[in-house]
Amino acid sequence: MSRKLIVGAAQMGPIARNESRKQTVARMVDLMRQAHARGARLVVFPELALTTFFPRWFMQDQSEVDAFFEREMPGPETRPLFEAARELGVGFYLGYAELAQQEGKPRHFNTSILVDTSGKVVGKYRKIHLPGHSQHEPWRPFQHLEKRYFEPGDMGFGTWKAFGGTMGMALCNDRRWPETYRMLALQGAELMMLGYNTPIHYPPVPEHDHLQGFHNHLCMQAGAYQNGLWVVGVAKAGKEEGCELLGQSCIIAPTGEIVAMAGSQEDELITYECDLDRTREIREHIFNFQLHRRPETYGLITESG
Amino acid sequence: MSRKLIVGAAQMGPIARNESRKQTVARMVDLMRQAHARGARLVVFPELALTTFFPRWFMQDQSEVDAFFEREMPGPETRPLFEAARELGVGFYLGYAELAQQEGKPRHFNTSILVDTSGKVVGKYRKIHLPGHSQHEPWRPFQHLEKRYFEPGDMGFGTWKAFGGTMGMALCNDRRWPETYRMLALQGAELMMLGYNTPIHYPPVPEHDHLQGFHNHLCMQAGAYQNGLWVVGVAKAGKEEGCELLGQSCIIAPTGEIVAMAGSQEDELITYECDLDRTREIREHIFNFQLHRRPETYGLITESG
Repeated sequence: MSRKLIVGAAQMGPIARNESRKQTVARMVDLMRQAHARGARLVVFPELALTTFFPRWFMQDQSEVDAFFEREMPGPETRPLFEAARELGVGFYLGYAELAQQEGKPRHFNTSILVDTSGKVVGKYRKIHLPGHSQHEPWRPFQHLEKRYFEPGDMGFGTWKAFGGTMGMALCNDRRWPETYRMLALQGAELMMLGYNTPIHYPPVPEHDHLQGFHNHLCMQAGAYQNGLWVVGVAKAGKEEGCELLGQSCIIAPTGEIVAMAGSQEDELITYECDLDRTREIREHIFNFQLHRRPETYGLITESG
Repeated sequence: MSRKLIVGAAQMGPIARNESRKQTVARMVDLMRQAHARGARLVVFPELALTTFFPRWFMQDQSEVDAFFEREMPGPETRPLFEAARELGVGFYLGYAELAQQEGKPRHFNTSILVDTSGKVVGKYRKIHLPGHSQHEPWRPFQHLEKRYFEPGDMGFGTWKAFGGTMGMALCNDRRWPETYRMLALQGAELMMLGYNTPIHYPPVPEHDHLQGFHNHLCMQAGAYQNGLWVVGVAKAGKEEGCELLGQSCIIAPTGEIVAMAGSQEDELITYECDLDRTREIREHIFNFQLHRRPETYGLITESG
């Protein structure tokens, strides 16, 4: 039985700070309709796809911060996404800021969910590698306060059986760390979905700014190849509230080749027919983990510094 | 104090099966003299640099296999390399087949050593990720019997203080595994030396042959960037006993950029002035391990399958 799956990477252009969830969700539903028209059964949206990238601002009023978070999923404003999934038979990966209540305490996570074609949440991941800083650093043109506004994910790396294969999720900065891909591949992942918001300007080392696009693809291509899995990396792109975000959303084959890439900095859907069986070309041969890995020599990797 | 080090990557063209150690060593000494003339203090040679790549043949007579191995280092035939190091003030990394005696038993390893500018061996590494197969597979145009002729390295991954920095070593297929770079970086490596012999034709999945050069660089560039270290990858290149070997030896900066690359399939020296302090641009910021790694979530990576 063929395990070919047409996947859409739904890049989004800037979201203004005053843009409502309703407006943003309407843009996303439009992308889902485009995806459906092109035969896709799965659409991948960016990280924190429902609002502007708010960690760029230092906010002292927690209620101002919390306004960017979702308390329920779906909620009234996000329900149209789930309805579109059911109507169109198009599932989706969605990144959003999650405000959970655990043991009576508020918990803030940078989260993604996987929703199947019946509109049901079948997987949830909370971002593990939070970048940036936790204190206000006024010298920066824009803050990157993910370490302030979120806790590190408490669910580990996981995979889910869905869309005819084994699906993995990660978020933004996770893609720079080879451990992310490896943890997913060791759990059988055949396709990794990843949304990102990546400012082109990295204030601590501005002399690397011209390499942002290269580094973005380098990490995802290596991760795909070294683990023999598909990678769908999806940007929030363009100049958002004065801050330039990297685009170049892409779909990467298990060979590490970029097989589709967004050519704009705006809302843009790209698609590719991913054959999940192609993971075998890699994982049964050059990267046959069972035959070739030597975990007994990797000890330091799991030791805490 | 500046920690700039001019490094030479001494790619070697084919070595015929009937070429003597003496002939090969003479070629290598010539490359060391070129390196000296260009200001290099360290030269990196390929994996198994002293002979033809013998794992391409199935041999049943162990003495025939053992003829490709070194019983001492230096021995009479390799001594000129050590003398050149002293004379020129040029240290080197050398890959060779090592036949050791441990507890009265012969042990076969795919080994590299680091020799300082006084001609002294200051580090030794035994290849951990052996590729290929252990049984004769007559359907292949060429065998890849590393798993037959060598044992996996028994010394783990290590680093050595030398040449003004912290040096790491690895060999060929090690470069495809992200764990290699991580194990070296976690031990402070600022520069990783790696020799390789990579047939362009990979019989199990010939439809990937055209990607050999891409995969070679992809893994090393990602490993350099994700660990903020210099990588010097050096090929035995060209058509050797009918088998085409990949060239494209290169020096890669901690940003992942290829800053020097061989343009031939022959003996060729490329050099670059590597500033070991540039590791800090990466390791103190985007890949600050202490701040951003989450080893508590990487458990599966060190579990044996």
